[in-house]
Amino acid sequence: MRRTVTIPRPKAFDRHKALIQALQLFWRTGYAATSVDDLSRALHLSRSSLYATFGDKRTLFLEALRFYSEQVISRTARTVQEAPSPRAGIRAIFDELAAGAGTDRGAMGCFMINSVAELVPYDPDVTELARSYSQAVQRILADAVAHAAAQQGLPSDHTPAQLAAYLFNALQGIRILLKSGATREQVDAVCAMTLQSLE
Amino acid sequence: MRRTVTIPRPKAFDRHKALIQALQLFWRTGYAATSVDDLSRALHLSRSSLYATFGDKRTLFLEALRFYSEQVISRTARTVQEAPSPRAGIRAIFDELAAGAGTDRGAMGCFMINSVAELVPYDPDVTELARSYSQAVQRILADAVAHAAAQQGLPSDHTPAQLAAYLFNALQGIRILLKSGATREQVDAVCAMTLQSLE
Repeated sequence: MRRTVTIPRPKAFDRHKALIQALQLFWRTGYAATSVDDLSRALHLSRSSLYATFGDKRTLFLEALRFYSEQVISRTARTVQEAPSPRAGIRAIFDELAAGAGTDRGAMGCFMINSVAELVPYDPDVTELARSYSQAVQRILADAVAHAAAQQGLPSDHTPAQLAAYLFNALQGIRILLKSGATREQVDAVCAMTLQSLE
Repeated sequence: MRRTVTIPRPKAFDRHKALIQALQLFWRTGYAATSVDDLSRALHLSRSSLYATFGDKRTLFLEALRFYSEQVISRTARTVQEAPSPRAGIRAIFDELAAGAGTDRGAMGCFMINSVAELVPYDPDVTELARSYSQAVQRILADAVAHAAAQQGLPSDHTPAQLAAYLFNALQGIRILLKSGATREQVDAVCAMTLQSLE
C-alpha cells in the first residue's frame, strides 16, 4: 500500500515582517551597534539571503527608517483627521505621546530622533530623510493650525508655519524627555503649557 | 671639548586634553561606532596606555559624558548669573543655542542627547547621568523663573518647576531641530514663542 505524503510547502517568506523585525532591532540597538549577524539571527535569514532580500546593512537601515517615517507621518495625519476639531486633533497628538511616560515604548524613544542623533550630519541620506520627515509632520500641524484659526481664530501673531514649528519642537523635546525618565506629571505639564499657545 | 647636550624632557602627558579629544570623537561618532583603535589614534596613546590612563572604552565614555554634562550645567548657570535679570538670563540661554543654526557646531547636536538617543534605557549609567543632567539644568531654570516671578510676577498659573520643565523641553527640541537642518529663522520663531510663556 502506498501512502500519500503531503510535504508542506515552505512558508512563504514574509518580507514585510522581516523589515519590521529589522526596524525593531535598529530602533533598540542603533545603527552602528547592530551587526549583520544580529540582523541575520533576528530575521532568521542567512547572510546571503539577507543581502539578496534587502541589500547591505545600510540599505536595510534606510528602508526601515523610511518605513518608520511614513508610519509616523500617516498616524499623525489620521489622529488629526479623526478628531472632532483641528484643535482637538493637535491635542490628541500630544496626548498619545504623553501616554508613553513611564512605559517601555516611551523609553525606546523615537527611531527618527535616535537616528538623527547617531548619524546626522555625517550621513546625507539620513539627513535628507530627517528633513523630509520634519517637513511632513510640520505640514500636518500647520494645516490643523490654519483650520483652527479659520474656525475660531488664534490669539497669536504667528503664522501657522511658525506655530507648527513650535509644536513640532515641543513634540521632539517630549520624545527625549520620555527617554530621560520624565514622569507623566512632568510631561503633562509640558503638553499643557505648549498647547496654551493655541488657546 | 665636551659639549653639553640638553635632552628635552618628554612632554608631560596632558590627561585633560586627551579626555577632551575622546569626548570630541565620541560626540561626533557615537559610542558604538568609536573603536578602541580610533581612540588610540585620536589620543596618540597605545592601547595599553589608553587602558592604563582611562580604563576601558565604556569607562572613558562615561567620564567624557560626565565632563560634558558638568560643562553644560556650569555654562548654563554662568549665562543666567551674568545676565542683567533672570528673565534676560533665560533669554540668553535660548539665544546662545539659536546662534548654532546652520553651523557645524549646531549640526553636531548635543552630546548628552546623542548619548541618550543611542544608549538609554539600556545603559543604566547613561540613564542616571541623563537624569541628573536634566534635573540640574531644570533647577537652574526653575531658580531663574522663581527670581523673575518674585521681581515682576509671572502671567501663568504654573509653578517654577513646571515652567522649567517646559523651557528645558523646548531647549532639547531645539537641539534636535538644529541637527535636522532648521534655519535660523525657524529656530528664532520657536524661541520667541517659547519665551512668550514668561511674558
